[in-house]
Amino acid sequence: MPFRSPVSEYRFLLDEIVDFAKVAATDAYGEASPETVEAILSEVGKLSEEVLAPLNRNGDLDPAVLENGVVRTSKGFADGYKAIAEGGWLGLSAPADHGGMDLPQTLTCVVNDLFSAACLSLGLNPLLSQGQIEALDHHAPDWMKETYLPKLISGEWTGTMNLTEPQAGSDVGALSSKAVPNGDGSYAVTGTKIYISWGDHDFGGNVCHLVLARLPDAAPGTKGISLFMVPKYMVNEDGSLGDPNSLRVQSLEHKMGLHGSPTCVMQFDGAIGWLVGEENKGMAAMFTMMNNARLGVGIQGIGVAEGALQHAFAYAMDRKQGKTPLDGKPGGTGTIIDHADVRRMLTTMKADTFAARAIALACGVAIDMETATGEKEWGARAAFLTPIAKAFGTETGMRVSEMGVQVHGGMGFIEETGAAQYSRDVRVTAIYEGTNGIQAMDMVARKMMDGGEMATTLIEEIEAQAETARADLPELGGAVWEAAETLREATEWMIAQGDLNDRFAGAVPYLMGFARVLGAHYHLKAAMTEDGDGPRTRLARFYINRLLPEHVGHLAHATCGAEDLYALTAEELSA
Amino acid sequence: MPFRSPVSEYRFLLDEIVDFAKVAATDAYGEASPETVEAILSEVGKLSEEVLAPLNRNGDLDPAVLENGVVRTSKGFADGYKAIAEGGWLGLSAPADHGGMDLPQTLTCVVNDLFSAACLSLGLNPLLSQGQIEALDHHAPDWMKETYLPKLISGEWTGTMNLTEPQAGSDVGALSSKAVPNGDGSYAVTGTKIYISWGDHDFGGNVCHLVLARLPDAAPGTKGISLFMVPKYMVNEDGSLGDPNSLRVQSLEHKMGLHGSPTCVMQFDGAIGWLVGEENKGMAAMFTMMNNARLGVGIQGIGVAEGALQHAFAYAMDRKQGKTPLDGKPGGTGTIIDHADVRRMLTTMKADTFAARAIALACGVAIDMETATGEKEWGARAAFLTPIAKAFGTETGMRVSEMGVQVHGGMGFIEETGAAQYSRDVRVTAIYEGTNGIQAMDMVARKMMDGGEMATTLIEEIEAQAETARADLPELGGAVWEAAETLREATEWMIAQGDLNDRFAGAVPYLMGFARVLGAHYHLKAAMTEDGDGPRTRLARFYINRLLPEHVGHLAHATCGAEDLYALTAEELSA
Repeated sequence: MPFRSPVSEYRFLLDEIVDFAKVAATDAYGEASPETVEAILSEVGKLSEEVLAPLNRNGDLDPAVLENGVVRTSKGFADGYKAIAEGGWLGLSAPADHGGMDLPQTLTCVVNDLFSAACLSLGLNPLLSQGQIEALDHHAPDWMKETYLPKLISGEWTGTMNLTEPQAGSDVGALSSKAVPNGDGSYAVTGTKIYISWGDHDFGGNVCHLVLARLPDAAPGTKGISLFMVPKYMVNEDGSLGDPNSLRVQSLEHKMGLHGSPTCVMQFDGAIGWLVGEENKGMAAMFTMMNNARLGVGIQGIGVAEGALQHAFAYAMDRKQGKTPLDGKPGGTGTIIDHADVRRMLTTMKADTFAARAIALACGVAIDMETATGEKEWGARAAFLTPIAKAFGTETGMRVSEMGVQVHGGMGFIEETGAAQYSRDVRVTAIYEGTNGIQAMDMVARKMMDGGEMATTLIEEIEAQAETARADLPELGGAVWEAAETLREATEWMIAQGDLNDRFAGAVPYLMGFARVLGAHYHLKAAMTEDGDGPRTRLARFYINRLLPEHVGHLAHATCGAEDLYALTAEELSA
Repeated sequence: MPFRSPVSEYRFLLDEIVDFAKVAATDAYGEASPETVEAILSEVGKLSEEVLAPLNRNGDLDPAVLENGVVRTSKGFADGYKAIAEGGWLGLSAPADHGGMDLPQTLTCVVNDLFSAACLSLGLNPLLSQGQIEALDHHAPDWMKETYLPKLISGEWTGTMNLTEPQAGSDVGALSSKAVPNGDGSYAVTGTKIYISWGDHDFGGNVCHLVLARLPDAAPGTKGISLFMVPKYMVNEDGSLGDPNSLRVQSLEHKMGLHGSPTCVMQFDGAIGWLVGEENKGMAAMFTMMNNARLGVGIQGIGVAEGALQHAFAYAMDRKQGKTPLDGKPGGTGTIIDHADVRRMLTTMKADTFAARAIALACGVAIDMETATGEKEWGARAAFLTPIAKAFGTETGMRVSEMGVQVHGGMGFIEETGAAQYSRDVRVTAIYEGTNGIQAMDMVARKMMDGGEMATTLIEEIEAQAETARADLPELGGAVWEAAETLREATEWMIAQGDLNDRFAGAVPYLMGFARVLGAHYHLKAAMTEDGDGPRTRLARFYINRLLPEHVGHLAHATCGAEDLYALTAEELSA
């Protein structure tokens, strides 16, 4: 069964769950009318189904390779990319004065969800350009905006992020690439960067590298880092491409998955670059790009979950095996979807995908509302939801694609089936753009510097809705309210820890517990849109009865403190 | 860091946790003295470290291939296999009158754990021969025992299991391979079998296929299945190899992992075979082989967990990144193992591996005690623990190897690191030999046909030990006792369900919840061996405080019944 874009699901989430109408009601986003949204969903849905999804296996079987110093991409990827660019999808949320559509980030989230579901490895490319567009829009000098933004927005050129070095992964402050002023306003950038996704390709146009490096007299650590635009080709005054810059792809990584996306080791040898933002303020500019990308990576996980779910459904509706409890009964399909355990897996996959998607889109709405209104609370909400959206979205991608393999039985382990590819591809999303551990530490430290105010606000919203739900859905409302109380206690415990390491010691399970409860909140909200016992209510009941109770384990784990982690010495642990 | 055989860990488990001395005290296993065990651990430990572990990457990078109808195995595998055979390890638990050592299965478990940790893809080969040896010993006619057993036990020949057909996976009764009597006591076997692990190789000797097929007048379903020995080469009267039989490897599967193990599609075209056991009683004979293999597959998961754990430890003890809370303090290593979240992951990996291994070895001891004493209760215990050992062992393998990737950060996704291979290789163990869903259904149906007697016996043992522990370890003992009570309630709920589908609807989470509590029982037992707060006690505290609470979510999920699974129709689910 080919990939089918879940357009009505997005519609439901936007309309009924995350209140996208609020965004469309702002002056800034007045263009985002229901008709515009419908048109976008329909166009991107078609593109994803007809152009991108058919490329997904190619990317795995015919990986990007390095030939004579140039990346040759998987068969069909260049055409697929061209279709994305021609649709204008790179510029959906980009500034209109440089050719973008200035539409809400929430809609870009939906677009990236579809791209990721259809073909994660190609879909990663526009995600990087989008982040770069946002960083340039906020931090680049005008001449650079005028030169680069129109080309990035049209998709003629693509963008990359060059942060990581072999000795500096999560600890960005340890990077050692150098940038020496050339005296003409440009800099000579030298260093090795690793894990550079889409560091090169054969789609034509320029590859625009945003590179973190140090000025000669820079302070150590993150305070001495500056950001530079270092293009693959020099740009002539008329905007045409000039001489190649002094940079090259040294090698491609051989990865567990995502084979269609070339992951490059980049070598910069005195390559000419220009400062983006202020000297020594590169981290601030990079954070603009990273925050955007973090939500985008969470969305990648959700997109893959969607793809894996549809793939497993199709198999379960086709495969006959054993006598099922519904054989000969009304509603029986005669296929394995009627076995209780298969149905348990598929319903889990569906319920978790809904929960993760609701969280991510709520984060998108908060970003848009902050942009549109400038209200700090929206910013705080977006900041708090971003690590949850990233980590829970990608965990959901892993969990759902692993279950997708399991639904296939023996066929799941055979690559031809395609189920295993989802599981291999999505694995990196829990790692890149800040590992999920880093996300969770961000959540319990930086995102709780408000004394837990935003966390508490969310918990109160969850409880208020649960109270309301008690009238019509007493059991579900009651269960969500109880869970929110447990989350409140865990949150109070977190806030009370003066030593951040006590928070870090439970950060990942705390984030997962929070996401579990937040997911229940959105499922409950979905149930409340129905009169009587509709399918949303029945899915909510499944989630709340079967998956929500996981929060108990997570939150117990979250509140143990750091002491027991260090009670075993490193030597005892490795004994 | 090279693989290091955890010999002292096995020693501790055998001596202090699963009471292996009880096995060695029986007449049947009097040979299994502490000195013998020590010698075995030391020999197999060395073999695993020096010969097998260095082959593991080869198996992935240089997969087995089919060339001109013959399987060519990965570089070094033939020598590795030869070393296993020459050590006598295929016959450790095989009958002495055919060249085996007649030692307890528990020791074979330890050997397979080591082989799996060092090189899963090659280690799978002896596992299959061991199962075949047991099946022949129980069911084959004497002439067949005399012909085949000495060669299988010496490792000169290898064995396979041929169950699955394209239309008959978990539903073995749907198989359609035919066996027609030739009139001379032999049968002509015809059919296609898939997923045949090690269906061929270039190690020399014979490949002995045990094949399930139907006689011409056989009843439909599992009651019409017979088991046949179908060798690759006919065997001359003097035991030498004669003409090739009418069978061939049609193709090899391209798999997510375990590339070193050739997974064959086998074609039997009137191949000559001989009946094993009685006509139409093939399933009984096959179950002997499968039960053995199920525990063996659980052990595979645990072995891979061990390998992934050591690999991640080594990385975490080497990799420097960021300032850790222990920098400049006593016990600080200056490496990422000192970060709370990394230590949380590594300690989880260690604690879960211990729990899964304790369960599997307890199952091994029950098997041996049944063999040695003939007491039914030991048999019931082994039967009950087998699906738990299989499913929890393999889930642990998946969870631990996934965390191992995460500990590596970006490097985890790069294949050269080796972390991803553990994750890919172990994935199949949750599927083959009966998916973990099938294991869980076996547990709540067939293994509870005693009215839950064995489940209750185990829960009472857990509670009795927890009571005892309360004197010295009140918090840990109390937590385990409470968890056992929750397990008791869930168990009573299970037993009370007349409709098996209500049990099936929660079978997997029930099994996982049971394993969580049982794991706590063994951790508590380990803590009780120490005077004061030793490393076992500190690890037990970690497990009981942080991981045991997961049972709450599992057991809530387990006891929802089937109704909500079918509340959403297949159409609604796939909408």
